[in-house]
Amino acid sequence: MVKLYDTTLRDGTQAEDISFSVEDKVRISRKLDDLGVHFIEGGWPGSNPRDIEFFKAMQSERLKNSVLVSFGATRRAGVKAKDDANIKALLASKSPAVTVFGKTWKLHVLKALRVSLDENLEMIFDSVSYLKKRVRVLYDAEHFFDGYKDDPEYAVQTLAAAEDAGAETIVLCDTNGGTLTFEISEIMKEVGRHLKAPVGIHAHNDSESAVANTLVAVKEGATMVQGTINGFGERCGNANLCSIIPALKLKMGIDCITDERLKKLRDTARFVYELANLPHFKHQPYVGDSAFAHKGGIHVSAVLKNPLTYEHVRPELVGNRQRVLVSDLSGRSNILFKAEEYGVDIESGSEVVKNVLNELKELEHRGFQYEGAEASFELLMNRALKKKERSFRLLGFRVIDEKRKEDEEAHAEAIIKLEVGGVVEHTAADGNGPVNALDAALRKALERFYPSIKEVKLLDFKVRVLAGVQGTAAKVRVLVESGDATDKWGTVGVSDNVIEASWQALVDALEYKLFKDRKKTGRKVK
Amino acid sequence: MVKLYDTTLRDGTQAEDISFSVEDKVRISRKLDDLGVHFIEGGWPGSNPRDIEFFKAMQSERLKNSVLVSFGATRRAGVKAKDDANIKALLASKSPAVTVFGKTWKLHVLKALRVSLDENLEMIFDSVSYLKKRVRVLYDAEHFFDGYKDDPEYAVQTLAAAEDAGAETIVLCDTNGGTLTFEISEIMKEVGRHLKAPVGIHAHNDSESAVANTLVAVKEGATMVQGTINGFGERCGNANLCSIIPALKLKMGIDCITDERLKKLRDTARFVYELANLPHFKHQPYVGDSAFAHKGGIHVSAVLKNPLTYEHVRPELVGNRQRVLVSDLSGRSNILFKAEEYGVDIESGSEVVKNVLNELKELEHRGFQYEGAEASFELLMNRALKKKERSFRLLGFRVIDEKRKEDEEAHAEAIIKLEVGGVVEHTAADGNGPVNALDAALRKALERFYPSIKEVKLLDFKVRVLAGVQGTAAKVRVLVESGDATDKWGTVGVSDNVIEASWQALVDALEYKLFKDRKKTGRKVK
Repeated sequence: MVKLYDTTLRDGTQAEDISFSVEDKVRISRKLDDLGVHFIEGGWPGSNPRDIEFFKAMQSERLKNSVLVSFGATRRAGVKAKDDANIKALLASKSPAVTVFGKTWKLHVLKALRVSLDENLEMIFDSVSYLKKRVRVLYDAEHFFDGYKDDPEYAVQTLAAAEDAGAETIVLCDTNGGTLTFEISEIMKEVGRHLKAPVGIHAHNDSESAVANTLVAVKEGATMVQGTINGFGERCGNANLCSIIPALKLKMGIDCITDERLKKLRDTARFVYELANLPHFKHQPYVGDSAFAHKGGIHVSAVLKNPLTYEHVRPELVGNRQRVLVSDLSGRSNILFKAEEYGVDIESGSEVVKNVLNELKELEHRGFQYEGAEASFELLMNRALKKKERSFRLLGFRVIDEKRKEDEEAHAEAIIKLEVGGVVEHTAADGNGPVNALDAALRKALERFYPSIKEVKLLDFKVRVLAGVQGTAAKVRVLVESGDATDKWGTVGVSDNVIEASWQALVDALEYKLFKDRKKTGRKVK
Repeated sequence: MVKLYDTTLRDGTQAEDISFSVEDKVRISRKLDDLGVHFIEGGWPGSNPRDIEFFKAMQSERLKNSVLVSFGATRRAGVKAKDDANIKALLASKSPAVTVFGKTWKLHVLKALRVSLDENLEMIFDSVSYLKKRVRVLYDAEHFFDGYKDDPEYAVQTLAAAEDAGAETIVLCDTNGGTLTFEISEIMKEVGRHLKAPVGIHAHNDSESAVANTLVAVKEGATMVQGTINGFGERCGNANLCSIIPALKLKMGIDCITDERLKKLRDTARFVYELANLPHFKHQPYVGDSAFAHKGGIHVSAVLKNPLTYEHVRPELVGNRQRVLVSDLSGRSNILFKAEEYGVDIESGSEVVKNVLNELKELEHRGFQYEGAEASFELLMNRALKKKERSFRLLGFRVIDEKRKEDEEAHAEAIIKLEVGGVVEHTAADGNGPVNALDAALRKALERFYPSIKEVKLLDFKVRVLAGVQGTAAKVRVLVESGDATDKWGTVGVSDNVIEASWQALVDALEYKLFKDRKKTGRKVK
C-alpha cells in the first residue's frame, strides 16, 4: 500500500501559468477526494491570503476519502514555535494534518536561512513536536538529495530530528529536480538504514525523470508519493500522479486507489486542465488523447486483434480509450455511463444513445468539450430524449462597447428582444463588459417570465482560443460557471466570435437553472 | 563517449500532430548536424514517397558531423534479401548507413509476422548480412524488453543473429514504452553478458520514464541513445534528446557533443517546434521558458546570490537563461534584474526604480500581472524612464456585436477614430469577434502611419476573470501574445470590461512593435 499525497493546489500553483481561484481549489479538492487520494495539500496559509480563505471555505466541506493538509515552513530562528506566525497560520487553517518543511542542505541552512547547523535541527524538532500535540504532522525534507550528496551525515540528522519529534512520515524532496534515477535508488537504500518512520518521495521534473524517480523510490521502500495532477508545478513541474498511479497499480501491483477510482483518472486530469484554463496535453501518458491512438495499417489490425501488441496497459483501466484514427467504434458505453451518472434514464439499445452520440461527435468536431461543462452535456442528453423544452425564443440582440476618450474606460450596453409563449420582451442593460451586459439583459428579459432566474449568479467565465481547429479562423471556447443557493454548474459555448460563444454558454446556464428547478431533485451537480 | 542517434525525422513524425515537408526535413537535418548528433535517421524509404524524396534531396547536402541513416524492416518471409522491396529501398536511399528492425517478441513473430521462430532469426541474419556488405548497418530489436520478459532466451537469440551478421550496434527498443526504469537496468545487466557488440537504447515515453530509462541504460553500458528533439513521437513520444544530452554531459560526465554545441540545445528545440508548427512547451526541462524561472521573494534573492540553491544546472550551458518573474512579491532586486535583462539602463539607487516599483505595486493591486506579458512590463519601465513616446492618441471607438436570429451567428464590427501628429484617421473593420474586430480596426487605422504594423500577428489571447479582486465587480485580465517574423511578445490589460482590457493589451502589443523597431538592436525578445 502506497499513500497518495496530492499537492496540485500548493506546489502545482507555483507553476508560471497556473492560478486557481478559491472556488477552483474547492472544486478540485472534491474531485481529488472522489479520485481517492489519501492527502490533499491545499496550500500554504502562511504565504498568502487566498490560501487562508481556501482553508476557511474547506471547513464546511466533507471529504469522504482524503485528509486535508496545510503546508508551511519550520519556525523561524530565535522564535518559539508557539509564537511563530507561520506555525500559527498552520493551526489556524484547522486542517487535520500539516506538512512542515525544513532544510537539509547545509548550503541553504548557512546561506539562505543564515542559522547554525544545530539551530536548524532545533527548528525542525521544535516545529514538529509542537504541532504534533495538536494535529497530524508530516515532514518534508527540502533539498534532501542535494543535501545528502553534500553531507550525508548532516542530512540524515535533519531527518532524525523530525522523526524524533514524531513526524508520521518523512518525505525526501528533490526540490531542484536535478537528481537522476540511479542516484535516488542508491540514496534511498542508504537512508532506509537510518529511519524507522515511513518514508515518502517528492520529486520534481527538471531532469524529466520525476515519475521514474518516484517509482524507483517506491521500489526502494517509500510508502508515500507526493505529486500533482498532470505534473503541474514550478519550473518543469512535479511528479505526475496521473502517470504514477497507474504504474503503481497496473505494473508494480501496489495498492493505492481502487480499480473503480482508477477509471476516473482521465476525467480528473481533464477537469484540472479545464480549471487551470490550459489545453489538455495530447501526448500525456495514460490519460492523453494520443496515449492509445493508433495509426492505420498492420499496426491497427494487430492492435485490434491483440491490444497487448502495441499497448502497454489497457486504456479503459484509466478511463481512456483506444483510438483508431479511421472510425470511432466506442462511445456508446461512455454515453450510458454518463447518463447513469446524471440520473438520465436511457436504455442501452435505444435510438437516443445513437442520437446523443451523433450530436456529440458533430459538436466535438466543432470544438465543444464537456469536462467542466456537465450542465451543457446534461441538457444535450435531455434534448435528445425530448425531455427539455426551450424556455424562450430569441428575436435578436445587439451589444455595444464604446470608448469615447483615452482616459475613460470603455462602456458596455446590450439590447435584447425575445419571446416566451407569444409574449415579446424587448429590453436593455448595461454591464461591466459585453458578456456581462448581455447576461444582464438576458436575465432582465427572462425574469418577467421566470422569477427564479434572479437566483442565478455568474461565478466565472473562461475563454480559450482553440488553435488550429479550423485553419486560420481560430475558434473560441467559453466556459461559464453559474450557481444559485444550492448548486453550481458549468456550461460551454464555441464560436469564432467570443460573444456568440458566451451567448451559447449563458443560455445553457439559465436553461439549466429552469430545467433543474423543474426536476426539483436538489441533487448536487458537479 | 555515447553516440547520439536522432530519429525526429522518422519516429518523431509518427506523432499524431506532426508532419514535416521534405524541405522541413532537410532544414532539420542541417540543424541536427550543427548540434552535432552522430546519426540522423531520416525516414523509412520503404513506407512512403516523401521519405524517398527526402533521401534524394539529401544526396546534395554535405553533413559535417552526422551520418545519415535510412530505416526499414528485415526482409519478408520467403523472399531473398536482394529481392526484398524494402531492403532495395534502403539501398536506393544512398544513405551511408541503414538501421534494420526485427522482431524479438514471440507474440509478434507468431501472431503479427506469422512466421516460425527460426525463420524470424534467418530473416534478421540475412537482412543484416546482405546490407552489411554494402553499407554500415545498425540493428533495432523491436519490442525487446517485452520480448525478453516473455522469453529471455529467444530474445537474446534474435540479438545474436544480428550480431553474428555483423550489425555494428544492437539497439534494444522499448517499443510500447511500458518498461519501468528498474526493469531496464535489470535486463540490461543480463543482456550485457551475452553480447560483444555495442548496445544502444531506444525508449518510448508511455510510462513517462523514457529519459530515465535511457540514462539508466547508459549507466548499465549502452553506448548509443536513440531519441528525438523535444521527445516528439508516436502516442506519448520518444525519449527526449533535449533532456538526455545535458544529463549525459553535465550530470554523468559522459561525452557526446562539445560544450559549444550544447549551448545550441534550446535553439535547436525551438527550431524544431517552429517547423512542426507547434507551441513551445513552456515547462520543458532544460530548454523551456519556465525551466529556470523563479518567482519572487527570498527565493529570488537566494538564487541571485547563488544559482545552485534553486537550479540543478546553469541555464547558459544549454543556451537557456534564468528568468525572474515579476509578480506581486517583487522587490528592488527583481526590477534591477529585469532592467538589465531588457537593456534598460537604471541605476540601483535611482528614482526610476522607486517609480517603477510604485507603479507596479499599484497596477498589480488592480490585477495586472507580468508573467507572460514582459513586453507590457518593458513599456512600463521605459515610460518611467520617459524613453517611450506614445505613437497615437485615441479619439474613440465603438464595437458592435449583433445577432438577429437564433440560428444566425453573432457578427462583430468596430469603428475607431484616432490621431497621429495632428492627422485624424476614422475607420472601421469587421471581425470574428469583438476583440478581433477592434484589433483589425486599430491596425487598419495605424498602418497608414506605421506600415510595419502589418507584420504583427495576434497569436493568442487569454481571458481570465479575477475573482474577488474588488468585491462583486469582477475584473478581467487579458493576455495577448503577438509576433512578427523575428520575435514574440506578450502584453496585458485589466479592466471590468473585457473590451477595455483587450484594448489595453492590443495597444501595448502594437506600441511594443513600434518601440522594438525603434530600438533596432536586433536582440531576441522572449
